[in-house]
Amino acid sequence: MAGILYAIPTPLGGAAADALPACVLKTIKTLQHFVVENAKTARAFLQEVGMPCAIQELDISVLESDVSQHIKKLQENLSIGLLSEAGCPAIADPGAALVAAAQREGIRMVPLVGPSSIVLALMASGLEGQRFAFCGYLPRETDERKRKIRELESRSRRERETQIFIETPYRNDVLLTALLDVSSENTLLCVATDLTLPDEQIRTQSIAQWRRARHTIGKRPSVFLLLSANH
Amino acid sequence: MAGILYAIPTPLGGAAADALPACVLKTIKTLQHFVVENAKTARAFLQEVGMPCAIQELDISVLESDVSQHIKKLQENLSIGLLSEAGCPAIADPGAALVAAAQREGIRMVPLVGPSSIVLALMASGLEGQRFAFCGYLPRETDERKRKIRELESRSRRERETQIFIETPYRNDVLLTALLDVSSENTLLCVATDLTLPDEQIRTQSIAQWRRARHTIGKRPSVFLLLSANH
Repeated sequence: MAGILYAIPTPLGGAAADALPACVLKTIKTLQHFVVENAKTARAFLQEVGMPCAIQELDISVLESDVSQHIKKLQENLSIGLLSEAGCPAIADPGAALVAAAQREGIRMVPLVGPSSIVLALMASGLEGQRFAFCGYLPRETDERKRKIRELESRSRRERETQIFIETPYRNDVLLTALLDVSSENTLLCVATDLTLPDEQIRTQSIAQWRRARHTIGKRPSVFLLLSANH
Repeated sequence: MAGILYAIPTPLGGAAADALPACVLKTIKTLQHFVVENAKTARAFLQEVGMPCAIQELDISVLESDVSQHIKKLQENLSIGLLSEAGCPAIADPGAALVAAAQREGIRMVPLVGPSSIVLALMASGLEGQRFAFCGYLPRETDERKRKIRELESRSRRERETQIFIETPYRNDVLLTALLDVSSENTLLCVATDLTLPDEQIRTQSIAQWRRARHTIGKRPSVFLLLSANH
């Protein structure tokens, strides 16, 4: 008899009690062991959830590359909640190595429902949602980044799929400038910023329209979605 | 002043009040106009949500290819909830044409948080979550399907990305058999079945292990995820 490994999505900007389903909150409250990306924000999240015990009584370990101690706990019939920073564990966030090890050991893995910025952005973009690819961060180096944008555009055209990517917030505007420099004017670009927050902004326009708009994003968390119009 | 178009995810198997966040339920309850994939299941969903009025008093239209009447309502300052069948509107589900038209008209689009089987399956798979592609349904014809599986495997290897796809439930086992026939024995396959339901099952194994397991899925809704181990 083994414990269960729960993957727990966490919202941007706190307010967990309001932003997660009742059945998810109920499950989280039953847990005593957590493996987390960042202990401080995990404690704040668990405080928000309204755990039935004091946060300092919980067993909170920081996720490291060696996952054997967590697997051992699961095998000893202890259930664990896996938490990343404002996101879904193991999706554009750490955690996959622990999940993979649990799968190899035949441990039951239960993903909980919560916000995913990729899904929220895609739903609201109006771009192709029957086929899409998430490719994480683009290269930092200018020429490499341009080459990658061209590659994403041609893949979007060839596969008729939306290309989704992210950037470290302080480089958002550098990425936006590169996209406007490199992409075809008919290509559609969606920028989804501050998802689920009061200042949420989700705008889909052609590259030509973005060029005219002279928009700046600033350092707000954003998701970028690109669809070549030429297919 | 225009209304807002809300994209509302709906859970598998009812129980909406428990499966959606409090802030989402609150927003849905303020709406009087809905555009839906299927009127009957939409009414059942809205009943579950606990709308503050009788369901027959709500304005529920079925989604058609001509979205101009819905855009007109939004421009007349009416907000609309967009609902698909047990899923996220516009992601592997209809709705993108309406969202795209709203984006073109500069109407505010707000995606609400809820279950996405793609995200749930990926979080629990332990497969590559930094890069992944969703490619919808595979071809039905046997040779075409095999060719597509080989193509997905080679793309997974080349791009180091998880390939995610779905099948009409009654063809799940035909697809599983084709995957076991065609894929390399080291390739990892995750089958995620009945997500969020009491019988949920999420198993990641190599093709060699799946061959030995002689597993059958049956007609339960499933998501398939494939990662080539040779990269």
